[in-house]
Amino acid sequence: MNVSIIGGTGSEGFGLALRLAKAGNHVTIGSRSQEKGAASAAEARRILGGQTAVDGTTNQEAAAAEVAFVTVPFEGQAEIYRSIKDRVRPGSIVVDCTSPLATAVGGRAWHVVRPWHGSAAEQAKAILDPAVRIVAAFHTIPGESLQDLEHDMESDVLVCGSDAEAKATVGSLIDEIPNLRWVDAGDLTQARITETLTALMISINRRYKIRDAAIRITGRDSWGSPGSSS
Amino acid sequence: MNVSIIGGTGSEGFGLALRLAKAGNHVTIGSRSQEKGAASAAEARRILGGQTAVDGTTNQEAAAAEVAFVTVPFEGQAEIYRSIKDRVRPGSIVVDCTSPLATAVGGRAWHVVRPWHGSAAEQAKAILDPAVRIVAAFHTIPGESLQDLEHDMESDVLVCGSDAEAKATVGSLIDEIPNLRWVDAGDLTQARITETLTALMISINRRYKIRDAAIRITGRDSWGSPGSSS
Repeated sequence: MNVSIIGGTGSEGFGLALRLAKAGNHVTIGSRSQEKGAASAAEARRILGGQTAVDGTTNQEAAAAEVAFVTVPFEGQAEIYRSIKDRVRPGSIVVDCTSPLATAVGGRAWHVVRPWHGSAAEQAKAILDPAVRIVAAFHTIPGESLQDLEHDMESDVLVCGSDAEAKATVGSLIDEIPNLRWVDAGDLTQARITETLTALMISINRRYKIRDAAIRITGRDSWGSPGSSS
Repeated sequence: MNVSIIGGTGSEGFGLALRLAKAGNHVTIGSRSQEKGAASAAEARRILGGQTAVDGTTNQEAAAAEVAFVTVPFEGQAEIYRSIKDRVRPGSIVVDCTSPLATAVGGRAWHVVRPWHGSAAEQAKAILDPAVRIVAAFHTIPGESLQDLEHDMESDVLVCGSDAEAKATVGSLIDEIPNLRWVDAGDLTQARITETLTALMISINRRYKIRDAAIRITGRDSWGSPGSSS
C-alpha cells in the first residue's frame, strides 16, 4: 500500500515510517522542507537496507497518499492540516496520531488540554474536506519503540473512527507490524479518551523510570481478531 | 486488613467484596439500608463458604474502616460522600472507584462527563476532610469479572493518588487478588484520565460483543513490580 507520514521526520513519524516500510508498504516521508523529508527517507533506506521503498518530500506532496498518517505536535496540528487540506484527496484516509499534551501550552507531558472539538482528531476532521475519512490511532505506541526494530512491540493499537472500512484498512496496516494488534475502540469521538492515554503512559513511565509503557486489552484471546467483530 | 465497601451491594462493590474477602480481609459491606447490607454480606458468606469474615451495615457505619472502597454511580457520588464525611476517619484511606459516565445525565455509558473538580476522585477529595487519603482505582475492572470467582482476571489496576503510602497499601490489597497487578499511574489528578477508561472499555465491549475488556500495561516484565519503583 502507498502510505505517507506527515511530520515523518519526528520520532513517532519516523518510527512509523520504518515499521510500515519494513512491512512492505511504499512509504513517503513528508516534512516542512523537501530536503528534510528526503534526508529522513535516505536514513530510513539506510536502516532498512537496499530494496526498501521509502522516499521523502514535502508534507503537501505527501498529503495526496491513499493513507496519510499525521504525526505532529498538537501545537502545530491545526496549522499543518490547514496547509495540506487542499492536497488530501476525498475518500482517502488520514490517520491522526496527535495527542493534546499540555506541553503545547508550556505544561507537562503527563497532562492534557481539551481541544475545542473534543479531540485533536475531531479538530482535524473540522479542518479537512468532509469526504476525507479520519481515523485516530497510535497514541499509546512510543516513537522509540517503533524505531527499535530489533524488538517486537507487545501492544494493542486503539483505533477510533466513524468509517468502519477506513478503520479496517488502518487495522490491516497495524497487523502487518509484528506483534502489534489493532482494537476497534469505537467512533471518532472516542479519541477524546484514547488521545489522553499518551499522557497516562508518560505518567507511568515517570513513575517506573521506563520509556515504553504501552497497553494491551485483555480478554482478547476469547474474542478473536478485531476484524471479526463488524 | 479491615476494609469496607461503600455501595457494596452493587455489581462492582459486591465483586470487590468477594475478591477482598476471599483474599483473607475482613470486609464490611455498606448500603443505604442496614438490611440490604446485611443481606449482601450473607450472600457473600454463602458464596465464599463458612469461615469468611464479611458483614453488612450502613454506608455510614462502613465509612469508619481503615480502607473504604466507594463504588457508587457518579450521579449519587457527591451525596454519598456528604453523607459519610463525618464518619471517615482522618488518616484512613478512601478508594474512589467512580467513573463519570454520561449515564449520570441520561447519556451513554461509553461517553463521559467532566466533573467540575477534574475527576470524580477529586470531587470526593473536595468533600472529605483533607486528612483523609484519597486513592482512585478499579475503573477498568468489570464487576462481573470480579464476581466470577471461577476465573482469575488478567488485568492491571491503574492506581492514582497523591499519597504514596496509601497507594502502596491499596496496591498490596490488589496484588492479593490472583492475577491482578497494580500500576502506579501517578497523582490523584491522573484520575481525570483513568476514570474515563471505563467508558473506553464499554465502547470496546460494544464493538466486540464481549463484557470483560480490561487493560494490561506492557513492558512490565522488564520493570518489575510497582512497589519497587518508589
